[in-house]
Amino acid sequence: MANSFHFPSYLQQRAALINTRLEQLCPPGSRLQQAMAYCLLAPGKRLRPVLTLAAGELVGGQLEQLMPGALAIEMVHAMSLVHDDLPAMDNDTLRRGRPTCHIAFDEATALLAGDALLAAAFGTLARAPGVQVGQAVQELSQAALAMCQGQSLDLLAEGREITAGELERIHSLKTGALLVAAARIGCLLGSGSALDLERLSTYAQAVGLAFQIIDDVLDATASTTELGKTAGKDQKAHKATFVTVHGVAAARRWAQAALAQAQAALAGYGPSAEPLRALGEYTVSRRR
Amino acid sequence: MANSFHFPSYLQQRAALINTRLEQLCPPGSRLQQAMAYCLLAPGKRLRPVLTLAAGELVGGQLEQLMPGALAIEMVHAMSLVHDDLPAMDNDTLRRGRPTCHIAFDEATALLAGDALLAAAFGTLARAPGVQVGQAVQELSQAALAMCQGQSLDLLAEGREITAGELERIHSLKTGALLVAAARIGCLLGSGSALDLERLSTYAQAVGLAFQIIDDVLDATASTTELGKTAGKDQKAHKATFVTVHGVAAARRWAQAALAQAQAALAGYGPSAEPLRALGEYTVSRRR
Repeated sequence: MANSFHFPSYLQQRAALINTRLEQLCPPGSRLQQAMAYCLLAPGKRLRPVLTLAAGELVGGQLEQLMPGALAIEMVHAMSLVHDDLPAMDNDTLRRGRPTCHIAFDEATALLAGDALLAAAFGTLARAPGVQVGQAVQELSQAALAMCQGQSLDLLAEGREITAGELERIHSLKTGALLVAAARIGCLLGSGSALDLERLSTYAQAVGLAFQIIDDVLDATASTTELGKTAGKDQKAHKATFVTVHGVAAARRWAQAALAQAQAALAGYGPSAEPLRALGEYTVSRRR
Repeated sequence: MANSFHFPSYLQQRAALINTRLEQLCPPGSRLQQAMAYCLLAPGKRLRPVLTLAAGELVGGQLEQLMPGALAIEMVHAMSLVHDDLPAMDNDTLRRGRPTCHIAFDEATALLAGDALLAAAFGTLARAPGVQVGQAVQELSQAALAMCQGQSLDLLAEGREITAGELERIHSLKTGALLVAAARIGCLLGSGSALDLERLSTYAQAVGLAFQIIDDVLDATASTTELGKTAGKDQKAHKATFVTVHGVAAARRWAQAALAQAQAALAGYGPSAEPLRALGEYTVSRRR
Protein backbone atom coordinates (compact mmCIF):
# COMPACT_ATOMS: atom_id res chain seq x y z
CA MET A 1 0.00 0.00 0.00
CA ALA A 2 2.78 2.40 0.92
CA ASN A 3 4.16 1.97 -2.59
CA SER A 4 0.84 2.55 -4.31
CA PHE A 5 0.20 5.83 -2.49
CA HIS A 6 1.81 8.81 -4.20
CA PHE A 7 1.84 11.72 -1.74
CA PRO A 8 2.97 14.54 -4.06
CA SER A 9 -0.01 14.05 -6.40
CA TYR A 10 -2.37 13.57 -3.44
CA LEU A 11 -1.13 16.82 -1.89
CA GLN A 12 -1.36 18.65 -5.21
CA GLN A 13 -4.94 17.50 -5.81
CA ARG A 14 -6.07 18.31 -2.31
CA ALA A 15 -4.35 21.72 -2.36
CA ALA A 16 -6.04 22.51 -5.70
CA LEU A 17 -9.42 21.59 -4.24
CA ILE A 18 -8.80 23.78 -1.19
CA ASN A 19 -7.55 26.66 -3.35
CA THR A 20 -10.74 26.57 -5.41
CA ARG A 21 -12.82 26.80 -2.24
CA LEU A 22 -10.65 29.56 -0.79
CA GLU A 23 -11.09 31.57 -4.01
CA GLN A 24 -14.86 31.26 -3.67
CA LEU A 25 -14.55 32.82 -0.21
CA CYS A 26 -12.79 35.87 -1.71
CA PRO A 27 -15.07 37.78 -4.06
CA PRO A 28 -13.52 40.90 -5.62
CA GLY A 29 -14.36 43.94 -3.52
CA SER A 30 -13.06 46.66 -1.24
CA ARG A 31 -9.42 47.34 -0.42
CA LEU A 32 -9.84 45.26 2.72
CA GLN A 33 -11.27 42.33 0.76
CA GLN A 34 -8.41 42.61 -1.73
CA ALA A 35 -5.92 42.42 1.11
CA MET A 36 -7.71 39.41 2.63
CA ALA A 37 -7.58 37.65 -0.75
CA TYR A 38 -3.91 38.62 -1.17
CA CYS A 39 -3.09 36.89 2.12
CA LEU A 40 -5.41 33.93 1.83
CA LEU A 41 -4.75 33.04 -1.82
CA ALA A 42 -0.97 33.47 -1.67
CA PRO A 43 0.74 30.30 -2.85
CA GLY A 44 1.13 27.89 0.05
CA LYS A 45 1.45 24.20 0.72
CA ARG A 46 -2.01 24.00 2.37
CA LEU A 47 -0.63 21.33 4.70
CA ARG A 48 -2.92 22.34 7.56
CA PRO A 49 -6.25 22.11 5.72
CA VAL A 50 -5.05 18.92 4.00
CA LEU A 51 -4.44 17.53 7.48
CA THR A 52 -8.01 18.46 8.50
CA LEU A 53 -9.45 16.64 5.49
CA ALA A 54 -7.19 13.59 5.94
CA ALA A 55 -7.98 13.30 9.66
CA GLY A 56 -11.71 13.63 9.00
CA GLU A 57 -11.68 11.08 6.19
CA LEU A 58 -9.70 8.63 8.31
CA VAL A 59 -12.61 8.51 10.76
CA GLY A 60 -15.23 8.22 8.00
CA GLY A 61 -16.14 11.88 7.34
CA GLN A 62 -17.14 13.17 3.90
CA LEU A 63 -15.19 15.93 2.18
CA GLU A 64 -18.08 18.43 2.13
CA GLN A 65 -18.68 17.96 5.84
CA LEU A 66 -14.99 18.57 6.58
CA MET A 67 -14.31 21.44 4.19
CA PRO A 68 -15.53 24.28 6.48
CA GLY A 69 -13.01 23.11 9.07
CA ALA A 70 -10.20 22.93 6.52
CA LEU A 71 -10.92 26.44 5.20
CA ALA A 72 -11.17 27.89 8.71
CA ILE A 73 -7.78 26.40 9.63
CA GLU A 74 -6.12 27.93 6.57
CA MET A 75 -7.73 31.31 7.36
CA VAL A 76 -6.33 31.31 10.88
CA HIS A 77 -2.93 30.33 9.49
CA ALA A 78 -3.03 33.16 6.92
CA MET A 79 -4.08 35.57 9.66
CA SER A 80 -1.15 34.61 11.86
CA LEU A 81 1.29 35.17 8.98
CA VAL A 82 0.02 38.65 8.10
CA HIS A 83 0.11 39.82 11.72
CA ASP A 84 3.48 38.20 12.49
CA ASP A 85 4.98 40.03 9.48
CA LEU A 86 3.87 43.49 10.71
CA PRO A 87 6.55 46.04 11.66
CA ALA A 88 5.59 45.85 15.35
CA MET A 89 6.24 42.10 15.27
CA ASP A 90 8.76 40.34 12.98
CA ASN A 91 8.85 43.26 10.51
CA ASP A 92 9.22 41.09 7.45
CA THR A 93 8.90 42.16 3.82
CA LEU A 94 8.81 38.83 1.99
CA ARG A 95 6.32 35.99 2.42
CA ARG A 96 5.41 33.12 0.12
CA GLY A 97 7.66 34.66 -2.53
CA ARG A 98 5.82 38.02 -2.58
CA PRO A 99 5.87 41.30 -0.66
CA THR A 100 4.14 40.94 2.71
CA CYS A 101 0.63 42.39 3.01
CA HIS A 102 1.63 45.62 4.76
CA ILE A 103 4.17 46.26 1.98
CA ALA A 104 1.72 45.46 -0.84
CA PHE A 105 -1.09 47.43 0.86
CA ASP A 106 -0.41 49.39 4.04
CA GLU A 107 -0.05 48.65 7.73
CA ALA A 108 -3.61 49.48 8.78
CA THR A 109 -5.04 47.37 5.97
CA ALA A 110 -2.79 44.43 6.85
CA LEU A 111 -3.84 44.69 10.49
CA LEU A 112 -7.53 44.76 9.57
CA ALA A 113 -7.13 41.97 7.00
CA GLY A 114 -5.74 39.74 9.73
CA ASP A 115 -8.58 40.62 12.08
CA ALA A 116 -11.12 40.01 9.34
CA LEU A 117 -9.57 36.65 8.39
CA LEU A 118 -9.71 35.55 12.02
CA ALA A 119 -13.36 36.57 12.32
CA ALA A 120 -14.22 34.96 8.98
CA ALA A 121 -12.54 31.71 10.02
CA PHE A 122 -15.02 31.23 12.86
CA GLY A 123 -17.98 32.13 10.67
CA THR A 124 -16.83 29.61 8.07
CA LEU A 125 -16.32 26.87 10.63
CA ALA A 126 -19.74 27.53 12.19
CA ARG A 127 -21.38 26.75 8.85
CA ALA A 128 -20.24 23.12 9.12
CA PRO A 129 -23.12 20.66 9.50
CA GLY A 130 -23.52 18.52 12.60
CA VAL A 131 -23.68 18.77 16.34
CA GLN A 132 -19.93 19.08 16.97
CA VAL A 133 -19.68 22.66 15.71
CA GLY A 134 -19.59 24.24 19.16
CA GLN A 135 -16.73 21.94 20.17
CA ALA A 136 -14.90 22.62 16.90
CA VAL A 137 -15.21 26.39 17.43
CA GLN A 138 -13.76 25.99 20.91
CA GLU A 139 -10.81 24.01 19.49
CA LEU A 140 -10.08 26.70 16.90
CA SER A 141 -10.36 29.42 19.54
CA GLN A 142 -7.90 27.64 21.82
CA ALA A 143 -5.44 27.15 18.97
CA ALA A 144 -5.59 30.82 17.93
CA LEU A 145 -5.10 31.86 21.55
CA ALA A 146 -2.11 29.53 21.85
CA MET A 147 -0.57 31.05 18.71
CA CYS A 148 -0.87 34.55 20.20
CA GLN A 149 0.66 33.33 23.44
CA GLY A 150 3.50 31.63 21.55
CA GLN A 151 4.24 34.69 19.44
CA SER A 152 4.26 36.84 22.57
CA LEU A 153 6.69 34.52 24.37
CA ASP A 154 8.83 34.33 21.22
CA LEU A 155 9.12 38.12 21.06
CA LEU A 156 9.96 38.29 24.77
CA ALA A 157 12.66 35.65 24.26
CA GLU A 158 14.45 37.51 21.46
CA GLY A 159 18.07 38.29 22.25
CA ARG A 160 18.19 36.35 25.53
CA GLU A 161 19.22 32.77 26.34
CA ILE A 162 16.33 30.37 26.70
CA THR A 163 16.24 26.75 27.76
CA ALA A 164 15.40 23.81 25.49
CA GLY A 165 12.18 23.39 27.48
CA GLU A 166 11.11 27.00 26.91
CA LEU A 167 11.93 26.63 23.23
CA GLU A 168 9.79 23.54 22.85
CA ARG A 169 6.93 25.25 24.66
CA ILE A 170 7.08 28.28 22.35
CA HIS A 171 7.07 26.07 19.28
CA SER A 172 4.27 23.94 20.57
CA LEU A 173 2.18 27.11 21.02
CA LYS A 174 3.19 28.83 17.78
CA THR A 175 3.02 25.87 15.41
CA GLY A 176 1.84 22.76 17.22
CA ALA A 177 -1.47 24.09 18.50
CA LEU A 178 -2.90 24.88 15.05
CA LEU A 179 -1.77 21.53 13.60
CA VAL A 180 -3.37 19.74 16.54
CA ALA A 181 -6.55 21.78 16.04
CA ALA A 182 -6.48 20.97 12.31
CA ALA A 183 -6.49 17.24 13.06
CA ARG A 184 -8.96 17.45 15.94
CA ILE A 185 -11.44 19.61 14.02
CA GLY A 186 -11.29 17.16 11.11
CA CYS A 187 -11.94 14.33 13.55
CA LEU A 188 -14.83 16.18 15.24
CA LEU A 189 -16.53 17.18 11.98
CA GLY A 190 -16.06 13.62 10.70
CA SER A 191 -17.70 12.29 13.90
CA GLY A 192 -14.63 10.37 15.08
CA SER A 193 -14.56 8.59 18.44
CA ALA A 194 -12.80 9.75 21.60
CA LEU A 195 -10.02 7.25 20.83
CA ASP A 196 -9.62 8.67 17.30
CA LEU A 197 -9.42 12.15 18.79
CA GLU A 198 -6.69 11.10 21.20
CA ARG A 199 -4.61 9.29 18.57
CA LEU A 200 -4.91 12.12 16.06
CA SER A 201 -3.91 14.66 18.71
CA THR A 202 -0.77 12.69 19.53
CA TYR A 203 0.02 12.34 15.83
CA ALA A 204 -0.50 16.04 15.10
CA GLN A 205 1.49 17.19 18.13
CA ALA A 206 4.48 15.13 16.99
CA VAL A 207 4.12 16.25 13.37
CA GLY A 208 3.93 19.85 14.58
CA LEU A 209 7.17 19.48 16.48
CA ALA A 210 8.92 17.88 13.49
CA PHE A 211 7.52 20.60 11.23
CA GLN A 212 8.88 23.41 13.37
CA ILE A 213 12.30 21.79 13.77
CA ILE A 214 12.59 21.43 9.99
CA ASP A 215 11.44 25.04 9.58
CA ASP A 216 14.35 26.09 11.77
CA VAL A 217 16.76 23.83 9.84
CA LEU A 218 15.59 25.30 6.52
CA ASP A 219 15.89 28.86 7.84
CA ALA A 220 19.53 28.11 8.65
CA THR A 221 20.45 26.05 5.56
CA ALA A 222 18.24 27.06 2.61
CA SER A 223 18.28 30.26 0.55
CA THR A 224 15.61 32.95 0.46
CA THR A 225 14.73 31.95 -3.12
CA GLU A 226 14.24 28.31 -2.13
CA LEU A 227 12.04 29.26 0.82
CA GLY A 228 10.00 32.07 -0.72
CA LYS A 229 10.52 33.93 2.55
CA THR A 230 13.50 35.63 4.14
CA ALA A 231 16.10 32.99 5.08
CA GLY A 232 18.61 33.22 7.92
CA LYS A 233 16.48 35.65 9.87
CA ASP A 234 16.43 33.59 13.08
CA GLN A 235 20.17 33.86 13.52
CA LYS A 236 20.14 37.50 12.49
CA ALA A 237 17.51 38.22 15.15
CA HIS A 238 19.53 36.18 17.70
CA LYS A 239 16.40 34.12 18.00
CA ALA A 240 16.49 30.86 19.91
CA THR A 241 15.56 27.99 17.57
CA PHE A 242 16.20 24.24 17.59
CA VAL A 243 19.18 24.93 15.34
CA THR A 244 20.72 27.83 17.24
CA VAL A 245 20.31 25.91 20.52
CA HIS A 246 21.20 22.35 19.40
CA GLY A 247 22.83 22.61 15.93
CA VAL A 248 21.59 21.31 12.55
CA ALA A 249 22.53 17.62 12.99
CA ALA A 250 20.89 17.23 16.39
CA ALA A 251 17.82 19.14 15.17
CA ARG A 252 17.41 16.72 12.25
CA ARG A 253 17.70 13.72 14.60
CA TRP A 254 15.10 15.28 16.87
CA ALA A 255 12.73 15.75 13.93
CA GLN A 256 13.15 12.06 12.99
CA ALA A 257 12.31 11.01 16.55
CA ALA A 258 9.16 13.15 16.48
CA LEU A 259 8.20 11.60 13.15
CA ALA A 260 8.56 8.10 14.63
CA GLN A 261 6.26 9.13 17.46
CA ALA A 262 3.69 10.44 14.96
CA GLN A 263 3.76 7.19 13.00
CA ALA A 264 3.37 5.15 16.19
CA ALA A 265 0.16 7.04 17.01
CA LEU A 266 -1.30 5.78 13.70
CA ALA A 267 -0.35 2.13 14.34
CA GLY A 268 -3.96 1.18 15.08
CA TYR A 269 -5.13 2.20 11.60
CA GLY A 270 -4.76 0.33 8.32
CA PRO A 271 -4.14 1.63 4.79
CA SER A 272 -6.70 4.43 5.28
CA ALA A 273 -4.07 6.27 7.37
CA GLU A 274 -1.63 6.29 4.45
CA PRO A 275 -2.21 10.00 3.64
CA LEU A 276 -1.43 10.95 7.24
CA ARG A 277 1.68 8.74 7.32
CA ALA A 278 2.91 10.29 4.08
CA LEU A 279 2.13 13.78 5.36
CA GLY A 280 4.33 13.07 8.36
CA GLU A 281 7.20 11.89 6.13
CA TYR A 282 6.81 14.93 3.93
CA THR A 283 7.01 17.27 6.91
CA VAL A 284 10.53 16.06 7.62
CA SER A 285 11.81 15.56 4.05
CA ARG A 286 10.52 18.84 2.55
CA ARG A 287 12.92 21.43 1.16
CA ARG A 288 10.76 24.52 1.76
CA MET B 1 -44.20 50.85 34.70
CA ALA B 2 -41.99 53.41 32.99
CA ASN B 3 -41.86 55.31 36.26
CA SER B 4 -41.10 52.26 38.38
CA PHE B 5 -38.15 51.22 36.20
CA HIS B 6 -34.91 52.92 37.23
CA PHE B 7 -32.41 52.49 34.40
CA PRO B 8 -29.24 53.80 36.12
CA SER B 9 -29.47 51.20 38.89
CA TYR B 10 -30.43 48.47 36.41
CA LEU B 11 -27.41 49.34 34.26
CA GLN B 12 -25.13 49.49 37.28
CA GLN B 13 -26.27 46.09 38.55
CA ARG B 14 -25.97 44.44 35.16
CA ALA B 15 -22.57 46.01 34.50
CA ALA B 16 -21.35 44.78 37.90
CA LEU B 17 -22.55 41.26 37.08
CA ILE B 18 -20.80 41.36 33.70
CA ASN B 19 -17.63 42.76 35.22
CA THR B 20 -17.49 39.90 37.72
CA ARG B 21 -17.77 37.38 34.90
CA LEU B 22 -15.19 39.21 32.77
CA GLU B 23 -12.77 39.14 35.70
CA GLN B 24 -13.21 35.37 35.97
CA LEU B 25 -12.14 35.13 32.32
CA CYS B 26 -8.88 36.94 33.12
CA PRO B 27 -6.69 34.94 35.48
CA PRO B 28 -3.34 36.55 36.32
CA GLY B 29 -0.66 35.29 33.96
CA SER B 30 1.72 36.13 31.16
CA ARG B 31 2.36 39.58 29.73
CA LEU B 32 -0.17 38.82 27.00
CA GLN B 33 -2.81 37.81 29.54
CA GLN B 34 -2.10 40.96 31.52
CA ALA B 35 -2.64 43.04 28.40
CA MET B 36 -5.88 41.20 27.61
CA ALA B 37 -7.12 41.88 31.13
CA TYR B 38 -6.02 45.52 30.88
CA CYS B 39 -8.20 45.95 27.78
CA LEU B 40 -11.13 43.82 28.82
CA LEU B 41 -11.46 45.03 32.42
CA ALA B 42 -10.97 48.74 31.67
CA PRO B 43 -13.90 50.72 33.03
CA GLY B 44 -16.68 50.82 30.47
CA LYS B 45 -20.43 51.22 30.30
CA ARG B 46 -20.94 47.58 29.21
CA LEU B 47 -23.90 48.73 27.09
CA ARG B 48 -23.38 46.02 24.47
CA PRO B 49 -23.41 42.99 26.80
CA VAL B 50 -26.28 44.56 28.76
CA LEU B 51 -28.14 44.74 25.45
CA THR B 52 -27.48 41.02 24.84
CA LEU B 53 -28.86 40.10 28.24
CA ALA B 54 -31.89 42.40 27.91
CA ALA B 55 -32.74 41.12 24.42
CA GLY B 56 -32.41 37.51 25.56
CA GLU B 57 -34.52 38.05 28.66
CA LEU B 58 -37.20 39.82 26.65
CA VAL B 59 -37.75 36.60 24.68
CA GLY B 60 -37.69 34.42 27.80
CA GLY B 61 -34.01 33.44 28.08
CA GLN B 62 -32.27 32.86 31.42
CA LEU B 63 -29.22 34.92 32.42
CA GLU B 64 -26.83 31.94 32.53
CA GLN B 65 -27.84 30.87 29.06
CA LEU B 66 -27.24 34.38 27.71
CA MET B 67 -24.05 35.25 29.55
CA PRO B 68 -21.58 33.60 27.08
CA GLY B 69 -23.08 35.79 24.35
CA ALA B 70 -22.81 38.93 26.47
CA LEU B 71 -19.17 38.24 27.37
CA ALA B 72 -18.26 37.44 23.76
CA ILE B 73 -19.77 40.72 22.58
CA GLU B 74 -17.77 42.73 25.12
CA MET B 75 -14.58 40.88 24.12
CA VAL B 76 -15.06 41.77 20.46
CA HIS B 77 -15.74 45.37 21.47
CA ALA B 78 -12.57 45.51 23.59
CA MET B 79 -10.61 43.97 20.73
CA SER B 80 -11.81 46.62 18.29
CA LEU B 81 -10.79 49.40 20.68
CA VAL B 82 -7.25 48.11 21.23
CA HIS B 83 -6.61 47.64 17.51
CA ASP B 84 -8.23 50.94 16.50
CA ASP B 85 -5.96 52.75 18.96
CA LEU B 86 -2.75 51.32 17.44
CA PRO B 87 -0.28 53.73 15.76
CA ALA B 88 -1.05 52.27 12.31
CA MET B 89 -4.73 53.11 12.82
CA ASP B 90 -6.05 56.00 14.94
CA ASN B 91 -2.80 56.29 16.94
CA ASP B 92 -4.51 57.19 20.19
CA THR B 93 -2.93 57.33 23.63
CA LEU B 94 -5.95 57.64 25.93
CA ARG B 95 -8.89 55.24 26.26
CA ARG B 96 -11.42 54.82 29.05
CA GLY B 97 -9.44 57.32 31.11
CA ARG B 98 -6.17 55.37 30.94
CA PRO B 99 -3.19 55.00 28.60
CA THR B 100 -4.08 52.84 25.60
CA CYS B 101 -2.79 49.26 25.59
CA HIS B 102 0.17 49.84 23.29
CA ILE B 103 1.28 52.73 25.55
CA ALA B 104 0.84 50.74 28.78
CA PHE B 105 2.47 47.64 27.26
CA ASP B 106 3.96 47.75 23.74
CA GLU B 107 2.69 47.64 20.18
CA ALA B 108 3.27 43.93 19.56
CA THR B 109 1.56 43.01 22.82
CA ALA B 110 -1.43 45.25 22.05
CA LEU B 111 -1.73 43.69 18.60
CA LEU B 112 -1.61 40.16 20.03
CA ALA B 113 -3.97 41.05 22.88
CA GLY B 114 -6.56 42.15 20.32
CA ASP B 115 -6.11 38.96 18.30
CA ALA B 116 -6.36 36.87 21.44
CA LEU B 117 -9.51 38.68 22.61
CA LEU B 118 -11.14 38.08 19.24
CA ALA B 119 -10.25 34.39 19.33
CA ALA B 120 -11.38 34.08 22.96
CA ALA B 121 -14.71 35.73 22.15
CA PHE B 122 -15.65 32.91 19.80
CA GLY B 123 -14.52 30.25 22.24
CA THR B 124 -16.60 31.86 24.98
CA LEU B 125 -19.67 32.13 22.77
CA ALA B 126 -19.33 28.49 21.66
CA ARG B 127 -19.67 27.38 25.28
CA ALA B 128 -23.26 28.64 25.36
CA PRO B 129 -25.80 25.85 25.74
CA GLY B 130 -28.41 25.10 23.07
CA VAL B 131 -28.70 24.41 19.39
CA GLN B 132 -28.39 28.01 18.19
CA VAL B 133 -24.66 28.28 18.89
CA GLY B 134 -23.60 27.80 15.25
CA GLN B 135 -25.94 30.59 14.17
CA ALA B 136 -24.76 32.84 17.02
CA VAL B 137 -21.11 32.29 16.02
CA GLN B 138 -21.96 33.26 12.46
CA GLU B 139 -23.65 36.45 13.69
CA LEU B 140 -20.60 37.42 15.74
CA SER B 141 -18.30 36.65 12.83
CA GLN B 142 -20.32 38.85 10.49
CA ALA B 143 -20.33 41.70 12.98
CA ALA B 144 -16.57 41.53 13.50
CA LEU B 145 -16.04 41.46 9.73
CA ALA B 146 -18.31 44.48 9.35
CA MET B 147 -16.32 46.37 11.98
CA CYS B 148 -13.08 45.72 10.08
CA GLN B 149 -14.72 46.84 6.85
CA GLY B 150 -16.06 49.98 8.52
CA GLN B 151 -12.72 50.86 10.06
CA SER B 152 -11.03 50.35 6.69
CA LEU B 153 -13.53 52.62 4.90
CA ASP B 154 -13.20 55.17 7.70
CA LEU B 155 -9.43 55.32 7.30
CA LEU B 156 -9.76 55.62 3.52
CA ALA B 157 -12.25 58.49 3.99
CA GLU B 158 -9.94 60.54 6.22
CA GLY B 159 -9.19 63.96 4.81
CA ARG B 160 -11.59 63.74 1.87
CA GLU B 161 -15.22 64.82 1.44
CA ILE B 162 -17.73 62.00 1.84
CA THR B 163 -21.48 61.94 1.31
CA ALA B 164 -24.05 61.55 4.07
CA GLY B 165 -24.85 58.11 2.66
CA GLU B 166 -21.24 56.97 2.85
CA LEU B 167 -21.02 58.32 6.37
CA GLU B 168 -24.09 56.40 7.51
CA ARG B 169 -22.72 53.23 5.90
CA ILE B 170 -19.39 53.57 7.70
CA HIS B 171 -21.12 54.09 11.03
CA SER B 172 -23.49 51.24 10.47
CA LEU B 173 -20.48 48.96 9.88
CA LYS B 174 -18.27 50.34 12.66
CA THR B 175 -20.86 50.63 15.43
CA GLY B 176 -24.22 49.36 14.26
CA ALA B 177 -23.20 45.83 13.30
CA LEU B 178 -21.95 44.87 16.77
CA LEU B 179 -25.01 46.34 18.50
CA VAL B 180 -27.25 44.43 16.11
CA ALA B 181 -25.24 41.26 16.77
CA ALA B 182 -25.50 41.91 20.53
CA ALA B 183 -29.30 41.95 20.31
CA ARG B 184 -29.58 39.08 17.82
CA ILE B 185 -27.22 36.80 19.76
CA GLY B 186 -29.21 37.48 22.94
CA CYS B 187 -32.38 36.61 21.05
CA LEU B 188 -30.88 33.44 19.55
CA LEU B 189 -29.45 32.17 22.84
CA GLY B 190 -32.78 32.98 24.52
CA SER B 191 -34.60 30.96 21.82
CA GLY B 192 -36.60 33.91 20.50
CA SER B 193 -38.84 33.59 17.43
CA ALA B 194 -38.10 34.85 13.92
CA LEU B 195 -40.39 37.81 14.63
CA ASP B 196 -38.46 38.63 17.83
CA LEU B 197 -35.24 38.47 15.85
CA GLU B 198 -36.55 40.88 13.24
CA ARG B 199 -37.91 43.37 15.77
CA LEU B 200 -34.75 43.31 17.86
CA SER B 201 -32.60 43.81 14.77
CA THR B 202 -34.59 46.91 13.78
CA TYR B 203 -34.37 48.21 17.35
CA ALA B 204 -30.63 47.63 17.60
CA GLN B 205 -29.88 49.12 14.20
CA ALA B 206 -31.67 52.33 15.17
CA VAL B 207 -30.05 52.43 18.61
CA GLY B 208 -26.68 51.91 16.95
CA LEU B 209 -27.21 54.87 14.67
CA ALA B 210 -28.33 57.09 17.58
CA PHE B 211 -25.36 55.90 19.61
CA GLN B 212 -22.85 56.82 16.92
CA ILE B 213 -24.41 60.22 16.26
CA ILE B 214 -24.22 61.06 19.97
CA ASP B 215 -20.62 59.80 20.03
CA ASP B 216 -19.83 62.34 17.32
CA VAL B 217 -21.72 65.08 19.18
CA LEU B 218 -19.82 64.33 22.39
CA ASP B 219 -16.49 64.28 20.56
CA ALA B 220 -17.25 67.81 19.35
CA THR B 221 -18.81 69.23 22.53
CA ALA B 222 -17.44 67.43 25.62
CA SER B 223 -13.97 67.59 27.16
CA THR B 224 -11.36 64.85 27.25
CA THR B 225 -11.84 64.54 31.02
CA GLU B 226 -15.59 64.08 30.66
CA LEU B 227 -15.15 61.44 27.95
CA GLY B 228 -12.21 59.52 29.37
CA LYS B 229 -10.82 59.49 25.82
CA THR B 230 -9.30 62.14 23.59
CA ALA B 231 -11.99 64.70 22.65
CA GLY B 232 -12.12 66.76 19.47
CA LYS B 233 -10.05 64.27 17.54
CA ASP B 234 -12.56 63.87 14.69
CA GLN B 235 -12.25 67.49 13.69
CA LYS B 236 -8.51 67.43 14.18
CA ALA B 237 -8.25 64.44 11.85
CA HIS B 238 -10.60 66.16 9.36
CA LYS B 239 -12.75 63.12 9.82
CA ALA B 240 -16.26 63.08 8.37
CA THR B 241 -18.76 62.64 11.20
CA PHE B 242 -22.45 63.42 11.62
CA VAL B 243 -21.38 66.64 13.28
CA THR B 244 -18.75 67.78 10.80
CA VAL B 245 -21.15 67.00 7.92
CA HIS B 246 -24.46 68.19 9.39
CA GLY B 247 -23.68 70.28 12.50
CA VAL B 248 -24.49 69.62 16.17
CA ALA B 249 -28.18 70.63 16.14
CA ALA B 250 -29.10 68.55 13.09
CA ALA B 251 -27.12 65.61 14.46
CA ARG B 252 -29.09 65.71 17.73
CA ARG B 253 -32.39 65.80 15.81
CA TRP B 254 -31.24 62.84 13.76
CA ALA B 255 -30.41 60.90 16.90
CA GLN B 256 -33.91 61.61 18.26
CA ALA B 257 -35.49 60.32 15.06
CA ALA B 258 -33.44 57.12 15.28
CA LEU B 259 -34.53 56.71 18.90
CA ALA B 260 -38.18 57.01 17.90
CA GLN B 261 -37.64 54.29 15.32
CA ALA B 262 -36.04 52.04 17.94
CA GLN B 263 -38.96 52.52 20.32
CA ALA B 264 -41.46 51.79 17.53
CA ALA B 265 -39.79 48.42 16.93
CA LEU B 266 -40.58 47.51 20.56
CA ALA B 267 -44.26 48.51 20.32
CA GLY B 268 -45.40 44.87 20.24
CA TYR B 269 -43.91 44.17 23.69
CA GLY B 270 -45.28 45.06 27.11
CA PRO B 271 -43.46 46.10 30.28
CA SER B 272 -40.82 43.38 29.76
CA ALA B 273 -39.25 45.60 27.07
CA GLU B 274 -38.74 48.43 29.59
CA PRO B 275 -34.97 47.80 29.93
CA LEU B 276 -34.52 48.03 26.16
CA ARG B 277 -36.66 51.20 25.96
CA ALA B 278 -34.63 52.81 28.73
CA LEU B 279 -31.37 51.69 27.10
CA GLY B 280 -32.47 53.49 23.94
CA GLU B 281 -33.24 56.67 25.88
CA TYR B 282 -29.91 56.45 27.67
CA THR B 283 -28.04 56.14 24.38
CA VAL B 284 -29.23 59.59 23.34
CA SER B 285 -29.18 61.37 26.72
CA ARG B 286 -25.76 60.14 27.92
CA ARG B 287 -22.91 62.58 28.59
CA ARG B 288 -20.01 60.23 27.87
